Amino acid sequence: MRIVALGGLGEIGLNLMAVECAGRAIVIDCGMMFPDEPALGIGAYVPRMTWLEQSHLTIEAVVLTHAHEDHIGALAHLLRRFNVPVYGTDVTLAFTRRRLAESELDEKIDLRTIAPRDVFAAGPFTIEAIRVTHSTPNSIALAIRTPAGIIIHSGDFKIDDAPVDGEMFDRERFAQLGAEGVALLMSDSTNVERPGRSGSESSLKPILRELTSRARGRFFLSAFSSHLHRIRQVVEVSREFGRRVAPLGRRIAESVRLGMEIGQLNFPPGMFVTPDEAEFLEPHRLSYLASGSQGEPMSALAKLGADSHPRVRIEHGDVVVLSSRFIPGNERTINTLVNRLYRQGAEVVYDAVAPVHVSGHASQDELAELITLTRPKNFIPIHGEYRHLSRHVSLAIAAGIPEQNCFLLEDGDSIVLNGTGARRGARVDAGRVIVEGVDAGDMSLLGERRMLARDGTVTAILVVSAQTGRILMGPDLVSRGLVSGNGTSEHMRRATDEVRRRLGAIGGPFRANESRVKEEIVRAIRNYFSDELGKRPLVIPYVTEV
Amino acid sequence: MRIVALGGLGEIGLNLMAVECAGRAIVIDCGMMFPDEPALGIGAYVPRMTWLEQSHLTIEAVVLTHAHEDHIGALAHLLRRFNVPVYGTDVTLAFTRRRLAESELDEKIDLRTIAPRDVFAAGPFTIEAIRVTHSTPNSIALAIRTPAGIIIHSGDFKIDDAPVDGEMFDRERFAQLGAEGVALLMSDSTNVERPGRSGSESSLKPILRELTSRARGRFFLSAFSSHLHRIRQVVEVSREFGRRVAPLGRRIAESVRLGMEIGQLNFPPGMFVTPDEAEFLEPHRLSYLASGSQGEPMSALAKLGADSHPRVRIEHGDVVVLSSRFIPGNERTINTLVNRLYRQGAEVVYDAVAPVHVSGHASQDELAELITLTRPKNFIPIHGEYRHLSRHVSLAIAAGIPEQNCFLLEDGDSIVLNGTGARRGARVDAGRVIVEGVDAGDMSLLGERRMLARDGTVTAILVVSAQTGRILMGPDLVSRGLVSGNGTSEHMRRATDEVRRRLGAIGGPFRANESRVKEEIVRAIRNYFSDELGKRPLVIPYVTEV
Repeated sequence: MRIVALGGLGEIGLNLMAVECAGRAIVIDCGMMFPDEPALGIGAYVPRMTWLEQSHLTIEAVVLTHAHEDHIGALAHLLRRFNVPVYGTDVTLAFTRRRLAESELDEKIDLRTIAPRDVFAAGPFTIEAIRVTHSTPNSIALAIRTPAGIIIHSGDFKIDDAPVDGEMFDRERFAQLGAEGVALLMSDSTNVERPGRSGSESSLKPILRELTSRARGRFFLSAFSSHLHRIRQVVEVSREFGRRVAPLGRRIAESVRLGMEIGQLNFPPGMFVTPDEAEFLEPHRLSYLASGSQGEPMSALAKLGADSHPRVRIEHGDVVVLSSRFIPGNERTINTLVNRLYRQGAEVVYDAVAPVHVSGHASQDELAELITLTRPKNFIPIHGEYRHLSRHVSLAIAAGIPEQNCFLLEDGDSIVLNGTGARRGARVDAGRVIVEGVDAGDMSLLGERRMLARDGTVTAILVVSAQTGRILMGPDLVSRGLVSGNGTSEHMRRATDEVRRRLGAIGGPFRANESRVKEEIVRAIRNYFSDELGKRPLVIPYVTEV
Repeated sequence: MRIVALGGLGEIGLNLMAVECAGRAIVIDCGMMFPDEPALGIGAYVPRMTWLEQSHLTIEAVVLTHAHEDHIGALAHLLRRFNVPVYGTDVTLAFTRRRLAESELDEKIDLRTIAPRDVFAAGPFTIEAIRVTHSTPNSIALAIRTPAGIIIHSGDFKIDDAPVDGEMFDRERFAQLGAEGVALLMSDSTNVERPGRSGSESSLKPILRELTSRARGRFFLSAFSSHLHRIRQVVEVSREFGRRVAPLGRRIAESVRLGMEIGQLNFPPGMFVTPDEAEFLEPHRLSYLASGSQGEPMSALAKLGADSHPRVRIEHGDVVVLSSRFIPGNERTINTLVNRLYRQGAEVVYDAVAPVHVSGHASQDELAELITLTRPKNFIPIHGEYRHLSRHVSLAIAAGIPEQNCFLLEDGDSIVLNGTGARRGARVDAGRVIVEGVDAGDMSLLGERRMLARDGTVTAILVVSAQTGRILMGPDLVSRGLVSGNGTSEHMRRATDEVRRRLGAIGGPFRANESRVKEEIVRAIRNYFSDELGKRPLVIPYVTEV
């Protein structure tokens, strides 16, 4: 039997894994990812599913560990290809259903709700859900009984000993499985760089209380919309201070509604108000849950910063809390947001100035604890970039797993596991594709945009006579994003001369479909701007006959 | 008299300030800045000098506080316009001379070396240099005696009580000026978000020692090339362990040479070796000072990560230390670099996993100390984004300066100061321009690149008869970076139909110079892709007559 890493291990930051035995497989998680180069305007990445499609596996089930986008976001892309049941806890499936509805797939899908300690069969596997703690409720790890022994997949987890919902990380069950014998542990590497323990989500309550009490005006907090624990704490604190809570932004309003439906946000009626109702409340009687903690351009927070929100304006005395980590690549946008909110008169509080965020991922001591509890024979670090995976291997070795039993896999790598041990298997095709709007595209688009962004573009137009092959018009050069106003005309004139010289050297007659002419045009323009300005614009040669 | 903020206060992250009295002025610092959107390929920003050019001031001197790019990098752009003497300490001018040589300006400039506690006259001002501690040696603050009282400009500073070179922050002089009476303090806001004190540069030595001793192979360290204190410590530690030091990269080699020339790096001959000589040394006898701690694409570190360095290859047992903070916007590039170095077999150490960097900027307690020492009547926070400036004002108020005497200026703002007090003056023109290669351009180039990067480009070509005005060829659409392979042809066909429909509605005859035709083409294409894909490509309409 084989474990195949299709995403989440290394550069492809979205999670997808297959566990296969004799042609029958289960898929664990199926995530999407937002771009870390927002300038390039890429909507989202989803995993390339070529291998799943071509490997002729029978996929028996998809099992989702928790409700985050990087674990559930690409499910629609998988389900369009494979009609399989999807397992997850109530919270996970509630968010998944919302996601599928956006893809107009929700009606047709077989979603099966499971609870921690539930056991179900999928093909040759028996799967048990084990409760972990994380930044969204009812997250689970998986214990998969296979012919080659028990495999544990940690999902995303931390060990929170004072969880907001009182639902404890299931140490007991992990220890029992450890005693029974675990062939392989795959464990979340996200925070392997952090020493000690991650701290409990509930440790935020005192600072939330302090900030709320300090706000003379309204209290705004922005967190990930699926972070129902965080939302719950904000509401609890608001209630202590006689504030009602208004969700601001479509996504957060939906999450609050979901949270109420599935019993994660149990508050008396009237605790939540709509933004319309909020306008009748005094500032110190009001908290807002606003979307946009990553500086997303169309979010409620971004509009507040730009003073363009249709309903709400920041006023002096308002406190705005960005209660999440800043995702790398977003810092610049978030910086701008913070500066703008300050300029509107708010006091802005974020991770750099006060401990207003606690991570949902295990730090070093918790990672070591999971290894100690489960005592696996073999170990694969998952969910991280190469440096995280590498450090997690070192940690596992220090925790007592023999070096030769630790496997640093990257996306596309696989492991073959049998009764006697584990070894590396063949590489498979893995990667990601772009989704923009409704279309999924290949990555060459991204290469074009990178070139355009860095060095701009030059279109060279040449009109030749269909009868004689003589040049009727051109070469004429049009550029954008290459050189600025001052220098444009002179550079264009000289580059045009250069193209003309080359065409003269080739000599006519010219034809529209001659690739040599186009190649010469591209080369002449590239060389000119490379030599003169050190720039390599994207050149579009256009030759037409009339 | 007037203080004019031309850069460094708010969004324009490069420093430039003018202090003016009756038409005569001094300029303090003149910085450039590298882009925080590297994808857009912008070489660098320099301040727009329109106001300095048009205000008919007599500029008496430029005074440089220290050797960093964001304080000296745009000097050539200023000196091409104004022929004025430039004052700075030996270290500052050594780096400045290198910078000017790159602009072929070094021969013609009147550079005047000053030392801390030196006093010199410039127009109506008497200026005194006061030693501060910072991440490059011989950094100074300025005390400027003016008809309206003493103005103190902190430069960039921290208060390091155990500086590597033994040269102490001049508390005594600040206190004397405070006793004499300071009309205005302008102070560095960079690290106002950090509580406590910044810690001494020399506190790094134990960890450098530990990491060097741990390295079975070579020891690599990358820091800013002007950070001669850091370089000195690396060399001292290497010497303890019998390692010689090889600078790797042009910029760092130049800095080492400068540091030796000006007496900042006093080591016996043979302590430094060239990369050629280094090849004869055993790994544990060798340290490298490598350039590229920000992941710069052509740097030594980047080449090591890509295994494309012409001389050096990373091997198992090598330790690589990134000894600098990660500048926002660079995280993604640095992440990739770290992953690659790991993959080559190095152990990589950076700020997130070990305290291998100490900031050169004052934290809250040091900022308060400078205020207490100088007891200024008025206060302006400088060097920071809006949020830093805002927090620094709060800190100054808490330190005892009346709120109405604190001025939160942004670039383009000015303050009028006279014997009785300070008040806001008129706004002036301030901003930044792009420098790429040798050309300075306006910002519209950046707008074009943003559009190209996000949504790509469509060129629409139409060839009409010069005689009849009838369409001979086209409309023909060529796109790049807009939609990916799968969908291109269908979208292009439909967008072309849309353009054809519009042209039909207008009706001919068509002329090349008709703006209405071009506008219709642009509108048709924009609308199509906006409606169909939510994209707004940069459209280039091209109509020609033959």
